[in-house]
Amino acid sequence: MNIKDTNIIGHYINGEFLEPSSEMQTVYNPALGIGKKKVLLADENTVEQAIRCAHVAFPIWRDTPVAKRTKVMFKFKQLLEENMEYLCELIGQEHGKISHDAMGEIQRGIENIEYACSAPELLKGEFSKNVGTNIDSWSEFQPLGIVAGITPFNFPAMVPLWMFPMAIVCGNCFILKPSEKTPSAALFLAELLTQAGLPKGVFNVVNGNKIAVDYLLQHNLIQAISFVGSTSIASYIYETATKFGKRCQALGGAKNHAVVLPDADLDNVANSLLGAAFGSSGERCMALSVVIAVGDHIADTLVKKLKIEIEKLKVGIHSNTHNDFGPLISKEHKEKVEYYITKAEEEGAEIVVDGRDTKPLGYENGFFVGATLMDKISPNMESYQHEIFGPVLQIIRVESIQQAMQIINNHTYGNGTCLYTKDGEAARYFSTHIQVGMVGINVPLPVPVAYHSFGGWKKSLFGDLYAYGPDSVRFYTHRKTITQRWVSKNFIEEKQFSMPT
Amino acid sequence: MNIKDTNIIGHYINGEFLEPSSEMQTVYNPALGIGKKKVLLADENTVEQAIRCAHVAFPIWRDTPVAKRTKVMFKFKQLLEENMEYLCELIGQEHGKISHDAMGEIQRGIENIEYACSAPELLKGEFSKNVGTNIDSWSEFQPLGIVAGITPFNFPAMVPLWMFPMAIVCGNCFILKPSEKTPSAALFLAELLTQAGLPKGVFNVVNGNKIAVDYLLQHNLIQAISFVGSTSIASYIYETATKFGKRCQALGGAKNHAVVLPDADLDNVANSLLGAAFGSSGERCMALSVVIAVGDHIADTLVKKLKIEIEKLKVGIHSNTHNDFGPLISKEHKEKVEYYITKAEEEGAEIVVDGRDTKPLGYENGFFVGATLMDKISPNMESYQHEIFGPVLQIIRVESIQQAMQIINNHTYGNGTCLYTKDGEAARYFSTHIQVGMVGINVPLPVPVAYHSFGGWKKSLFGDLYAYGPDSVRFYTHRKTITQRWVSKNFIEEKQFSMPT
Amino acid sequence: MNIKDTNIIGHYINGEFLEPSSEMQTVYNPALGIGKKKVLLADENTVEQAIRCAHVAFPIWRDTPVAKRTKVMFKFKQLLEENMEYLCELIGQEHGKISHDAMGEIQRGIENIEYACSAPELLKGEFSKNVGTNIDSWSEFQPLGIVAGITPFNFPAMVPLWMFPMAIVCGNCFILKPSEKTPSAALFLAELLTQAGLPKGVFNVVNGNKIAVDYLLQHNLIQAISFVGSTSIASYIYETATKFGKRCQALGGAKNHAVVLPDADLDNVANSLLGAAFGSSGERCMALSVVIAVGDHIADTLVKKLKIEIEKLKVGIHSNTHNDFGPLISKEHKEKVEYYITKAEEEGAEIVVDGRDTKPLGYENGFFVGATLMDKISPNMESYQHEIFGPVLQIIRVESIQQAMQIINNHTYGNGTCLYTKDGEAARYFSTHIQVGMVGINVPLPVPVAYHSFGGWKKSLFGDLYAYGPDSVRFYTHRKTITQRWVSKNFIEEKQFSMPT
Amino acid sequence: MNIKDTNIIGHYINGEFLEPSSEMQTVYNPALGIGKKKVLLADENTVEQAIRCAHVAFPIWRDTPVAKRTKVMFKFKQLLEENMEYLCELIGQEHGKISHDAMGEIQRGIENIEYACSAPELLKGEFSKNVGTNIDSWSEFQPLGIVAGITPFNFPAMVPLWMFPMAIVCGNCFILKPSEKTPSAALFLAELLTQAGLPKGVFNVVNGNKIAVDYLLQHNLIQAISFVGSTSIASYIYETATKFGKRCQALGGAKNHAVVLPDADLDNVANSLLGAAFGSSGERCMALSVVIAVGDHIADTLVKKLKIEIEKLKVGIHSNTHNDFGPLISKEHKEKVEYYITKAEEEGAEIVVDGRDTKPLGYENGFFVGATLMDKISPNMESYQHEIFGPVLQIIRVESIQQAMQIINNHTYGNGTCLYTKDGEAARYFSTHIQVGMVGINVPLPVPVAYHSFGGWKKSLFGDLYAYGPDSVRFYTHRKTITQRWVSKNFIEEKQFSMPT
Repeated sequence: MNIKDTNIIGHYINGEFLEPSSEMQTVYNPALGIGKKKVLLADENTVEQAIRCAHVAFPIWRDTPVAKRTKVMFKFKQLLEENMEYLCELIGQEHGKISHDAMGEIQRGIENIEYACSAPELLKGEFSKNVGTNIDSWSEFQPLGIVAGITPFNFPAMVPLWMFPMAIVCGNCFILKPSEKTPSAALFLAELLTQAGLPKGVFNVVNGNKIAVDYLLQHNLIQAISFVGSTSIASYIYETATKFGKRCQALGGAKNHAVVLPDADLDNVANSLLGAAFGSSGERCMALSVVIAVGDHIADTLVKKLKIEIEKLKVGIHSNTHNDFGPLISKEHKEKVEYYITKAEEEGAEIVVDGRDTKPLGYENGFFVGATLMDKISPNMESYQHEIFGPVLQIIRVESIQQAMQIINNHTYGNGTCLYTKDGEAARYFSTHIQVGMVGINVPLPVPVAYHSFGGWKKSLFGDLYAYGPDSVRFYTHRKTITQRWVSKNFIEEKQFSMPT
Repeated sequence: MNIKDTNIIGHYINGEFLEPSSEMQTVYNPALGIGKKKVLLADENTVEQAIRCAHVAFPIWRDTPVAKRTKVMFKFKQLLEENMEYLCELIGQEHGKISHDAMGEIQRGIENIEYACSAPELLKGEFSKNVGTNIDSWSEFQPLGIVAGITPFNFPAMVPLWMFPMAIVCGNCFILKPSEKTPSAALFLAELLTQAGLPKGVFNVVNGNKIAVDYLLQHNLIQAISFVGSTSIASYIYETATKFGKRCQALGGAKNHAVVLPDADLDNVANSLLGAAFGSSGERCMALSVVIAVGDHIADTLVKKLKIEIEKLKVGIHSNTHNDFGPLISKEHKEKVEYYITKAEEEGAEIVVDGRDTKPLGYENGFFVGATLMDKISPNMESYQHEIFGPVLQIIRVESIQQAMQIINNHTYGNGTCLYTKDGEAARYFSTHIQVGMVGINVPLPVPVAYHSFGGWKKSLFGDLYAYGPDSVRFYTHRKTITQRWVSKNFIEEKQFSMPT
Repeated sequence: MNIKDTNIIGHYINGEFLEPSSEMQTVYNPALGIGKKKVLLADENTVEQAIRCAHVAFPIWRDTPVAKRTKVMFKFKQLLEENMEYLCELIGQEHGKISHDAMGEIQRGIENIEYACSAPELLKGEFSKNVGTNIDSWSEFQPLGIVAGITPFNFPAMVPLWMFPMAIVCGNCFILKPSEKTPSAALFLAELLTQAGLPKGVFNVVNGNKIAVDYLLQHNLIQAISFVGSTSIASYIYETATKFGKRCQALGGAKNHAVVLPDADLDNVANSLLGAAFGSSGERCMALSVVIAVGDHIADTLVKKLKIEIEKLKVGIHSNTHNDFGPLISKEHKEKVEYYITKAEEEGAEIVVDGRDTKPLGYENGFFVGATLMDKISPNMESYQHEIFGPVLQIIRVESIQQAMQIINNHTYGNGTCLYTKDGEAARYFSTHIQVGMVGINVPLPVPVAYHSFGGWKKSLFGDLYAYGPDSVRFYTHRKTITQRWVSKNFIEEKQFSMPT
Repeated sequence: MNIKDTNIIGHYINGEFLEPSSEMQTVYNPALGIGKKKVLLADENTVEQAIRCAHVAFPIWRDTPVAKRTKVMFKFKQLLEENMEYLCELIGQEHGKISHDAMGEIQRGIENIEYACSAPELLKGEFSKNVGTNIDSWSEFQPLGIVAGITPFNFPAMVPLWMFPMAIVCGNCFILKPSEKTPSAALFLAELLTQAGLPKGVFNVVNGNKIAVDYLLQHNLIQAISFVGSTSIASYIYETATKFGKRCQALGGAKNHAVVLPDADLDNVANSLLGAAFGSSGERCMALSVVIAVGDHIADTLVKKLKIEIEKLKVGIHSNTHNDFGPLISKEHKEKVEYYITKAEEEGAEIVVDGRDTKPLGYENGFFVGATLMDKISPNMESYQHEIFGPVLQIIRVESIQQAMQIINNHTYGNGTCLYTKDGEAARYFSTHIQVGMVGINVPLPVPVAYHSFGGWKKSLFGDLYAYGPDSVRFYTHRKTITQRWVSKNFIEEKQFSMPT
């Protein structure tokens, strides 16, 4: 039996699918508005079982040479590449994102596996000869034990792949709690890992809700928690995990601004903003949701160009690759997004393109909101202060780059941002002084590549080490420093090793 | 006015000594059992004042080239070397440690300044050419803003020096809350920093108690907290700082074991244990407080040798360099240490040398406990389960190295440990499998040198990045990742820069 | 057509096999003593053709994002794993090494490909913010252009794989001149690279002799030379390549000593020495060819144990995996090895096991020398002073480790060495003070893993950067340092980007 | 006796000044055209003596803990800062450079000492746990032994400081052969090193000519050569040093171009070019000697602005800080520079400002050439193809940035270059594709800071590792890789360390 054969989505523990009788929840196809699949929600016993299996697997995995651990990742990459289409379909059915978008997500995930294949390099400790006379000292980066990842619905494959490949090559065992809205991708990845030769118990998936999360947060065998989700939950996760003495990195919400300077090429800007704002229905923590135009002329021109292009965008089912983006994840979320649009309207924003009441033919029950463009947004509007997480682009008008930067620096979040310009000095000034962790210059979605690390500032990230890349190596290991002296005076002076005569 | 001229110990804020009228507390000379000095305990207004000054100083300090920031540290090192004796005296009067011991503490502290002088190397970001076609990406490690250090009584100079030199060269402003029992060293360091050219407001000292600490923990301008102290407070600090969204590293208690294998040279072992166990009255988080002897023969011999040597040890006033160690920090602490000795005796331990009721001539009111050796300790005794933090060495007897390691791995703490052996395999087996962060092989106090990082495992450290060394650079900075593309197609193909004709 | 279909071994240039009419040389099967295949020897025109193709391919390959270049290596690794058996057979036919030995060689080679997959990490430059006020500086490691590798007969696959995967992922084009005695493996690797998606012209193989080598050494488009072979040729290569202004790393000969201390476990020692001394007929630059026994008792016991084991060893054809090792590479080389044995005998060595006149049944014309053990070697013997490069193990007897180390330090070569002991101090003393680049402690063939670098000292390596591993990244790139300032005073103070009003 | 007391400039060997009777040569004050001092030219015996002392000093220095070696550099920095003015005077008298210029030189040199103080960080080896089961491997970077530096007249303090601080903290002994035209600075540095606590024999200075150089190049105890000078000598040094099996880095000549794009701010450009072209009389390997103006309008404007400013420049004696630059180093060199000006004139260049026949009042016999500006230079002129190394700025006019870059890429040298622009894309295109090692964007003298490395491409540098910075650490050490296994099976399974019963 495998993930392909069933509508009951269980857990993956100790190298096997597991479907204990327990509470269930419907998994919707958001384009259809209905759900045939059901996901099991782990109770505490099930989570405990996963932890126990990981605990048993850990000592052998920890002592497996890193090059051997890495070989599993090389193979996993190959298998994942061979199964990309199937995984796209799984993601599309539960999340609704168009296939080409899911393909991009998986590709990004694979790059994290590729980086994990650098583990022999990344895990090198530092060796110092003669820290004192005849004393050497060195560091080793040893795995923590069992670490857990709690991941969001919007990247069912990529965000887990940010975490577990590196955690695992570092020698840890991993327990993944994916979103209960999009659980299947994680299980399929688990299957491929086993095929790639990963010993059982090293990687486990438990589906569930707050019960499972809280059990993980409090369990004394869980050494570290990686989380990606909304800021309110991230804050709870960080506070709770650390209260129980764990290390924790918790990535939260965002409000990502693009600043458009007068010297920018507005055709390029408009084109690149479309994908950045509306791709994946804006359900990305790096989605570009606010444009700050410097000068009314820039704003007017840009709005005009964007309006034309936005009205051409197509929404619909994931499997039709002519669609530009799909539905939102749930009815509740659709309502929330529409609430923000309406609220902005009431507060004085100008709705240039209105995506409310979007009902693609044949998918009238889907959770769709169309691409929405709102001009004349001001920072005191409710819809500006919160992350909308939908296909909504807001325009703010200012007079100078300094004004634009002040608005950004005043926002609660500091995840990503982008500046459009041709000017080297503007770029350097902006990237130096903006209080945001990931900065694009003419790059609207400045997601760091897999060999750098992902992390925002302010309320966008709690913790000190960022997701994936070099930071994740340090996060998933603890340092051990050995100081060594060999002492018998006899040896050197008196030739202890000479033969007795 | 400076630190040398007064018995009222105030604060150092914005480049000046400050003595607002506020609550005071006596600072004892623990060898005399009396105190002439008084330390001011900051209220919230005073802490706020320090934070405000730091906040004003930050933008200019952040943008000062790193090489210039580093030059301040070069000069600070020089000044500190020139003033070592005075600083020793300050420490001796308040802490009681013998001058040669204080000298060692300062020397270790200076090595942290030296490492901070490597900042131009340590702060290098990672630059990747062509992460995509014509797209470059790089990381910058920018200072956090204002960070705070809360430090213990036992190393009035060294532990602050673990923290602020690196925090400051990274471009941060720093607020130090030293122990109210030994506050003067910090103020003297502040003075030297100003002499070395540090702009005012970059480094500030506030003396105080839990009121000051809590104010720092909750203030939204404080970005990070470094703490060294007991585990109960460390746990509180970590939980509270993280609850307020800050990054935090909190170092707590320890119970450091030495394992003596049958092949060890017992004369060397005995000699090296003396300083490790009794130096600074055992008031060190790396003090060697338990010896696990493998085999009764080893235990018997070692106890005999230790007894002879321990009975020769001298305790007394810090200024007499013939003394081996000084008093404990306070009357309360002396009573607690004596309680643990008495309790162990009641629970069946054998008191080989008894340090209770030690009253050096002329210092009968001092808080002294003499060197104490206890044999036949078992892991279930109360005095074993807790950190005694006094001049008490406990002996446990086992049959094998595995048994010894199991005892260590079962303890709550995992700070330091040491193995005595000549055998390469034993050393490697021990250092690999022991659940302790700092491991010595024939080195009883395996404190990592300044260019490595200090940190224990389990309840000895909360957080993911360790104190000083490479880890501290990452702790005191946040990563910013820039992704940059320059885009006008005109430039390359159409020679935008050629002259119009 | 491909490498599998012909007995004429040509070149691989610009993605294609090429067989220009030119001089030829027989490629022997050394176990049979005859050769059915012929290898073409490139004239200058052919080498020029390869260089020209590489020159054309370079600009596009250089500008291909490193992650894309790396993907070719991921695929190449997979293809090579799928074709290991065929490659073993190719190597066996021309070199004579037993299949399991060839398998090991390829496995080591694959590990170099795996390390090359870390290129995105390894190629990161260093970014420094504010080296002066508003001035940033960073380094980029750009490819050199065309680089060449000249490789020996004894590792037809592994030594090329030390070089070209890293050179290529760094963005260079590569010309390989393999040994004309074992040319086929290189051509097969070229085929697989093309299958893996490498653009044509990036990797080229030219077969040939000194004519080809000299042409490469003198050509101004060749930027760097990597060489592995004998010291006399290495010296010539280094002198000539540098004379023409190129960078060069030239690895030469070796005489690798094992020192056996009295505390070593002699059964283990004897077992591990067998493979180290006789594996691949001793035709390895890391072959363990001298044992220095500390104490006559050790020597006597070891010789006795070795004699018993050596007499059980089997030599023969590569395809019979019961054989322990195969023939030497040529008739001339067999004669040279036998000359050294005879010479040693004349100079007073004791021949414990004599491998001369070995004629395995059915392979009487093969170039075999059996495993040979010589005791009582002294450093002034001719056979000691030179690298024999055959299945000959020499025993030297000394009284102390210091004496042993002096002998090693006096030898011309400093490639590899090994100490057998249980003693931590001896290991540290030996590894610190021995004048040898690669040191084993209880590891007789201390070939560094692929993520470290390979290189000997003294006459074993000319150049400053070693083969493969981290050093090779620096060798195959040149550093470019950019210092950048953006300067218009207008921008910040006068808000150049605000709209004109 | 010290450097201050004599007009006979000898050697510094084994911690002492040495003045053996030998050949002498006059050291000129180039502003006066006469010389009171004489420098001794070492014969082979003197060089041999220096090498022997270094050889004796090496073993102890090598084994001195790196932190102790570094402390010497901290002290040396302090002493040098305290003696900057005296050193300026020494340099001024022999080289002629104006005091503020000498001050800058020394400051740059001190930054190299500061970087050498990072040695504990820089010398860390790489430690890999479990490269195989129970096998660890790590690298150590050990000093080479004795290394030599051969330095040019134009930076009597800075270029030696590029080399020996790092070589020495790495554990090497150093022999410096400074230019015989400006020898005193090196001797003064030697004195300060001794005062800073450097053991005798670790640093030695021999003055001399080709005899001394050749003796160093051929001596088998010299492990590495660092050279800075002209390309013809650099090429000879590289060829000869490598022929004798040494590692070598040899930095040669330059022709550094600035490209001025139409969007550049020409006032800024003109101002910054003055110092870059004429500072230190253009006797810098990073001097900006060619401006390529894109567009005639740019050229015309720039020439006009430059002419005005150049005519204000003052030349004269080093001690008058109102002077902008001083004399050339020698009569011969003055004649050569004037030859190139005359030759350019003959070949059709336009002499805008003519510095020939410059005779400052009171210094009529000095070797002065005034600032010279030549327009309408073409790449085929002799004066363009060679490095003039004088206060001569040449203007080339082109139509596009591509044309400008082609001219630069066609030149023999590839040391430094600069682009003036405001455009981010132009900057990135230029820095990516220009075949030059050190690139400035709006920075006319892009000398890398001390924590990066200095090196040009093409004929500007021979070797693979650059001067100072991270590269120099690798250059001055050889890698040793240890692979270690501890083996007795007894230990783990059979509890070898349990007590016999």
